[in-house]
Amino acid sequence: MTLGGLLSAPPAIVAAGVDVFSDALRAQGADVHDVDWRPPGFGDPADLAALALDPRRNAANRVAVERILAAGSRLVDVRPAREVIGLADRTLLHSGPPLTWETASGPMRGALIGACLFEGWADDVEEAETLLSSGAIALDPCHHHRTVGPMAGVTSPSMWMWYLEDPVHGGKAFSNLNEGLGKVLRYGAFNQEVLDRLAWMRDVLGPVLSTAVRSMAEPLDVKNVLAQMLQMGDEAHNRNRAGSLMTLRELSPALVEVDAPSSDIAAVLKFIGGNEHFFLNLGMPTAKLAMDAARDVPGSSMVTVMARNGTEFGIQTAGTGDRWFTGPANTPVGLFLGDYGPDDANADIGDSAIMETYGIGGFAMAAAPAIVRFVGGTVPDALATTERMYQVTLAENPAMAIPIMGFRGSPTGIDVLKVARTGWLPQINTGMAGRIAGTGQVGAGLVQPPQECFEKALVALAEETRRA
Amino acid sequence: MTLGGLLSAPPAIVAAGVDVFSDALRAQGADVHDVDWRPPGFGDPADLAALALDPRRNAANRVAVERILAAGSRLVDVRPAREVIGLADRTLLHSGPPLTWETASGPMRGALIGACLFEGWADDVEEAETLLSSGAIALDPCHHHRTVGPMAGVTSPSMWMWYLEDPVHGGKAFSNLNEGLGKVLRYGAFNQEVLDRLAWMRDVLGPVLSTAVRSMAEPLDVKNVLAQMLQMGDEAHNRNRAGSLMTLRELSPALVEVDAPSSDIAAVLKFIGGNEHFFLNLGMPTAKLAMDAARDVPGSSMVTVMARNGTEFGIQTAGTGDRWFTGPANTPVGLFLGDYGPDDANADIGDSAIMETYGIGGFAMAAAPAIVRFVGGTVPDALATTERMYQVTLAENPAMAIPIMGFRGSPTGIDVLKVARTGWLPQINTGMAGRIAGTGQVGAGLVQPPQECFEKALVALAEETRRA
Repeated sequence: MTLGGLLSAPPAIVAAGVDVFSDALRAQGADVHDVDWRPPGFGDPADLAALALDPRRNAANRVAVERILAAGSRLVDVRPAREVIGLADRTLLHSGPPLTWETASGPMRGALIGACLFEGWADDVEEAETLLSSGAIALDPCHHHRTVGPMAGVTSPSMWMWYLEDPVHGGKAFSNLNEGLGKVLRYGAFNQEVLDRLAWMRDVLGPVLSTAVRSMAEPLDVKNVLAQMLQMGDEAHNRNRAGSLMTLRELSPALVEVDAPSSDIAAVLKFIGGNEHFFLNLGMPTAKLAMDAARDVPGSSMVTVMARNGTEFGIQTAGTGDRWFTGPANTPVGLFLGDYGPDDANADIGDSAIMETYGIGGFAMAAAPAIVRFVGGTVPDALATTERMYQVTLAENPAMAIPIMGFRGSPTGIDVLKVARTGWLPQINTGMAGRIAGTGQVGAGLVQPPQECFEKALVALAEETRRA
Repeated sequence: MTLGGLLSAPPAIVAAGVDVFSDALRAQGADVHDVDWRPPGFGDPADLAALALDPRRNAANRVAVERILAAGSRLVDVRPAREVIGLADRTLLHSGPPLTWETASGPMRGALIGACLFEGWADDVEEAETLLSSGAIALDPCHHHRTVGPMAGVTSPSMWMWYLEDPVHGGKAFSNLNEGLGKVLRYGAFNQEVLDRLAWMRDVLGPVLSTAVRSMAEPLDVKNVLAQMLQMGDEAHNRNRAGSLMTLRELSPALVEVDAPSSDIAAVLKFIGGNEHFFLNLGMPTAKLAMDAARDVPGSSMVTVMARNGTEFGIQTAGTGDRWFTGPANTPVGLFLGDYGPDDANADIGDSAIMETYGIGGFAMAAAPAIVRFVGGTVPDALATTERMYQVTLAENPAMAIPIMGFRGSPTGIDVLKVARTGWLPQINTGMAGRIAGTGQVGAGLVQPPQECFEKALVALAEETRRA
């Protein structure tokens, strides 16, 4: 880590590509790490040239990035989805790009089934499956409703949502409330424990939070909480410990003055205090506000959305509006809970990659070295990941400073062209859902988007450039 | 920081001792940092040899360290000092080694004056000064009462105290409640704002905390909070943000069920939530429990106390019982609040160096790189400080793991012999009090004990060795 450590310890060798070299060193007892090397870059040279030569590109990317950096985030309300985003009866939102019941993975199906039971649209699992497969329930991506949801992201009309506003650009963004870890709807579980918790969240947590949030003289500045989290060992995707604690601190004086039984207030405080990911559903719409502010900038090759539905990974760019560029989602690699193993993990799922799109989460792993105990890898890997992400991004976000890197701003604004040129794909920290509906969480780990998303985006951006 | 960074950036050169070398490099435009070099080590060779050859020493130091590592810390009660440590009327506790009104510094005098006003022993400052200088008020170190107090550490009979127990060794330790920053008694301020806050702490905060703490089914495991803090960017002396938030989380469900007006409960939650150092007064007695467990181990050269009274710095060792080894306290160097500057700073003050004695605080700066924004220096300095402290300590505390160092345990158990051999003095992060009574806090910074304390301890340990 330090110069002293480097010079006093035996050399650790990183060998790229050619096995002969590392095998020879290993035979001499050296500590050799092979890396999966490949010639960098992808994309049709004509497309790469078209983008590189587009006279609009630098200015457009600067506009897009500046909107991200300027965006703010205030928590203004907590309301049911039915009211606040006008979510219609018999409609369910889900994470990632569009999908159908037929193409939905196990955890997504589990969450959709659970939501039908929770809403009372079906009395049992079989009935819910019949309903969902008949097409009687409309499915729509969260992202099409200024909404983001972690993992399955399934949001139904009766669920309460955080309502955030960007005071700079005027945007709004929404997310449901975080249920905690383990057997929870967003990881595809739908047993009675899950449904009981959702009912308590609907009947107690939501109304109490709503009253407390509405009573606050100053709305919670969620962007400021995010900035502080990076000073406190959170990367704000898979580690939200400090953020959840700060949220509790900010809400608790208002919570105790809500006119409700003190046992309900104590239960709300225990629920928030017992859920280290409670903040995630506030961080995600904060990132969404910033990325939505950067939408629709002609000529910009910057990524505005990365999201996964458990089957496909989808991205959008500032230069191509609402169009999705998709590919089959990879399966995360990481650490497993209990007896679960790699065979139990579903493909990558959730809108939470909006954190990396915003430049934190996996991009700010250096700020959260303790994350490696949760997602796998080593502390030097965490530092190297952040270093690498500077190569595929357009800017450093001074509000999101990483102390261990001398307070350098987090790498922000993924550039499709830089990704194509370097061949480095964005690094995402994520939870892992069990691939069988009803399982819940099985672990947490690291994952990357399929290159195909970026290949397709590159082609589309090049086409747009030629038309412009 | 990383290999890549080291090889790709221009060299930064650290030059020790001889100016000619660094001047020549500087003339060539290189980035040169001069360090204050001196021949390492101190102490009479006969004394050093006596200690090194003492056949008891290794085993004794192992016993002392193992007691530290094994010690636990549970918050069991909150009671007034009068009751819980039997603090007599007209008696005030203070930080550091023994002192008198005559030898007391400005902030210590300010805090003593404030305590006399708070207790109603004097009606105004003049009367308080007369009382104190007459000897009518007994002064005694906190450490003589299993107590530790930050900064002036002044504790009077009506102040409420945290009461902690070590479930492993059965020890008890105490500390008053933290008032927050700025104009506060412990920094020597004593105006009406200070007295009003102390009265509120006596009448509302103390009783509410007491009821809440007594109602908790499981007592708060303060050692566990400390361990988590090091994963969250706190070093637990000058940064207690995560610790204060976790304390709030643990106490809040019990707080809301206390039978008191909801406005009082809200005020308590706001007070705790608004004070990022609230945890310090729980961390300090936790360290005190561990260090008291390691007291009285004949033949051990390990430091059990480092404490300052604003005039003198004092240490104690496991091999020499309750004897103080003192020297004139240094003045911290660091960053100042508002318009304050180095001339406004008092000499080092407070029992809070118990955190470094325990192996965290300044010793765990690598866990808290953001601390440099508060105490000065750079992030590499913070890493280097922790690296250096491993050279003067006996063990690594696995419970206090530092993520950025690959989860290496914090350097624990300062060895007088190692300090003498290396000449490296312990590094302490600390607050800075204004040197004029009544000022309050003027900044925060870094400080070391005077070498004299360790010189005296070395002589005493060598004498004890020869007698044994």
